Amino acid sequence: MIEFIDKSMRQFLDELASKAPTPGGGSAAAIMGAQSAALTSMVCNLTLGKPEYAGVENDMQVLLKKSETLRDQLTGMIKRDVDVFNQLMSTYALPKETEAHKSIRSAAIQKALQEATEIPLVCARACAEAVALSRIAAEKGNMGAISDAGVAVMSAYSGLKSAALNVYINTASLKDKKFADAKLTELEAILNGIDVEVENIYQLVKNKLSPND
Amino acid sequence: MIEFIDKSMRQFLDELASKAPTPGGGSAAAIMGAQSAALTSMVCNLTLGKPEYAGVENDMQVLLKKSETLRDQLTGMIKRDVDVFNQLMSTYALPKETEAHKSIRSAAIQKALQEATEIPLVCARACAEAVALSRIAAEKGNMGAISDAGVAVMSAYSGLKSAALNVYINTASLKDKKFADAKLTELEAILNGIDVEVENIYQLVKNKLSPND
Repeated sequence: MIEFIDKSMRQFLDELASKAPTPGGGSAAAIMGAQSAALTSMVCNLTLGKPEYAGVENDMQVLLKKSETLRDQLTGMIKRDVDVFNQLMSTYALPKETEAHKSIRSAAIQKALQEATEIPLVCARACAEAVALSRIAAEKGNMGAISDAGVAVMSAYSGLKSAALNVYINTASLKDKKFADAKLTELEAILNGIDVEVENIYQLVKNKLSPND
Repeated sequence: MIEFIDKSMRQFLDELASKAPTPGGGSAAAIMGAQSAALTSMVCNLTLGKPEYAGVENDMQVLLKKSETLRDQLTGMIKRDVDVFNQLMSTYALPKETEAHKSIRSAAIQKALQEATEIPLVCARACAEAVALSRIAAEKGNMGAISDAGVAVMSAYSGLKSAALNVYINTASLKDKKFADAKLTELEAILNGIDVEVENIYQLVKNKLSPND
């Protein structure tokens, strides 16, 4: 089966809008993260080799390497989100006629829910890194592409807050409360301070765009 | 030339990350808005026809019609953003050897900048509508798809704040300050209260996901 990443944007949006269970919000979150990383890479590519930005050439090379690695990771998560969702749905379809069936089915659901909690948590962490990378692009990148650094931070933020929702929804159904609490604690650590940081990066970009305001 | 919307997501992200001037942040903003509208449509499509949601059947039909119209509009803006950017770039390439040339070039740049201000403003307004539609999906949609309504609101918010940056960048270069101020006033009206509204919708979704928190 062709992966979503290799389908046209039009087809992806059509399938997203449909009542088909996948792709869903988890894939959309990964796309926003990947888009953020791509925009940071764009700022790097528009800065590298420019004589007036020779002073940040090395910083931009390091940043580009990180943003492209992150883009690869987040692009791969579009498919992982679909896979983990399908896996979870298949466990709900397991037989539940006997007590033995019920027990096997319940254990399989819980295992799939744990995986379905881990994937968006990894996505959230990657999006938080995308926020951090967009700050460097906003601070040091080519002024002519600075608005793209601003779009990068908003795209990453949206991906992060979206991925968080998929952590909340799956932990709510987990019976292993210790596992669920540990994952929610991890998520809160990732989210801690992010609203303020995103606003700061956005204002940094906005001030560079309209210096006379 | 094939439109970005008909290229694969992989190719779009590759071109976004490259130093090619298009696609850029403006197209990324339109995509996030279109993704938001698609997710609201998905919630509608997962709610319509379900006996337990018969009470909101009519609301969902009205919402779906609006979200699909909005998705069409925002999808079209991916290309419009590229076109207006290319148009602006072509005016900067006009000859500037004589005073007459300079005058013609400057007028052409200003005209293109006005258009390059209008397009992201239309995108911002469409994204604000996508926020409003996501609230209805979050309030009345199928509980099983409620996290998708939450991703819809974040995606629309990110598209709106991103489009705003393209309004700021272009108004900053406009010589017609009256026009620029009018557009900035329009934008501020669109942005007014949106942060609080987005947070309210997000919390509404989050509370439905983890009712025991």
